[in-house]
Amino acid sequence: MIDMRRWKHVFKLDPDRDIDDMALERICLSGTDAVMVGGTSGVTFDNTVDLLSRIRRFEVDCVLEISDRDAIVPGFDLYFIPIVLNASNPDWIIGHHHLAVKEYGPMMQWDQIVAEGYVILNGDSTAARVTEARTELERSDVEAYAKIAERLFRLPVLYLEYSGTFGDMELVRRTASSLQDARLFYGGGIDGPEKARQAAAAAHTIIVGNAIYENLDRALETVQAIQDVEKGCL
Amino acid sequence: MIDMRRWKHVFKLDPDRDIDDMALERICLSGTDAVMVGGTSGVTFDNTVDLLSRIRRFEVDCVLEISDRDAIVPGFDLYFIPIVLNASNPDWIIGHHHLAVKEYGPMMQWDQIVAEGYVILNGDSTAARVTEARTELERSDVEAYAKIAERLFRLPVLYLEYSGTFGDMELVRRTASSLQDARLFYGGGIDGPEKARQAAAAAHTIIVGNAIYENLDRALETVQAIQDVEKGCL
Repeated sequence: MIDMRRWKHVFKLDPDRDIDDMALERICLSGTDAVMVGGTSGVTFDNTVDLLSRIRRFEVDCVLEISDRDAIVPGFDLYFIPIVLNASNPDWIIGHHHLAVKEYGPMMQWDQIVAEGYVILNGDSTAARVTEARTELERSDVEAYAKIAERLFRLPVLYLEYSGTFGDMELVRRTASSLQDARLFYGGGIDGPEKARQAAAAAHTIIVGNAIYENLDRALETVQAIQDVEKGCL
Repeated sequence: MIDMRRWKHVFKLDPDRDIDDMALERICLSGTDAVMVGGTSGVTFDNTVDLLSRIRRFEVDCVLEISDRDAIVPGFDLYFIPIVLNASNPDWIIGHHHLAVKEYGPMMQWDQIVAEGYVILNGDSTAARVTEARTELERSDVEAYAKIAERLFRLPVLYLEYSGTFGDMELVRRTASSLQDARLFYGGGIDGPEKARQAAAAAHTIIVGNAIYENLDRALETVQAIQDVEKGCL
């Protein structure tokens, strides 16, 4: 059984973006803790199953972050379900989830499902537009969402998503420290080892996504950077 | 520490409705498992604290169901926080909760807080109008909400609220059976011992509210009815 509580570093691959075999091999053999498949737009059953089958040639743990209920592909190790806490469109808090559970409920293996409490923090991102997220948040707003995620909804993951911009590390650090059991996933703007070290010092788990497509060598260096942080070589 | 998992019968008192001392005494000494204070409209700090102080003359467990963050009164045994799963206004899923936690978070005793996943099923009720609830639900919709409440949000209570009408007991029974850990609270239309027996055979916990104000003697008979069900005298 996969223990996502031990993850420090995750690569996130978007089924809607091209990656060649050599690059995919380097990602999968990088020493990352897991590969997460997910994206905000253009994710289909076909491009998801295609990417899964290519990743499955390697031993790395591979999980799906579900963004479209038509693209739920069997065969992943875990299924992450985002609950967008600061969405103003309730479909992204519970609506899509309700339809998915109504349709697939009897087939769902609940021990493979991880609910993530998302807070989307970059108002210019596609994710913010799609979910109509309220991104004008004070630190105290984020801290309140963290409490709701962990104490009211009892979610195992709080995901602070800055999508393409590097976030407020002091906020990330304080929020992570305030959690008792939930894990804080941080994503956004980790374009190389320096940012990876900073984010890893603040969050429980860092997610590296865009950098894979923009500068693969520097993206790969983030894995080693995390291992350095772990060993106290910061 | 109060164990709400053992509750079979609860009386719900509305701070916005009048109840005289004699009636209140009979409610509190009735043998009910708990008195819940809560209402949908007209609930204020003043009428809540007034009702609490009158109930506190008795030994019965007394809990507050929070419907307005300006009416959170200290001194209750537990605080129930409704999360209206079928609200189409996200304020009733997470918005009011977020503001309340932002304001009161540091003072909150989380071990006294119980999150309830509400499904509002009477479209003509005040609760449905206030929360803009989607009440045109099939049985499979309710069953999906139950799974979301328990498995995704890990809420300890699923509350099926028929507000003033007597619900679909077959649906209540099936939904209660589908839960693994969460408790099913049923409210609506329990106007006397016959309905109480039917509801108690379907739900884990029944809530008797309006009957207190409409026919107190029959409301009080629901307590004995539950005890008869418990003893197998149905």
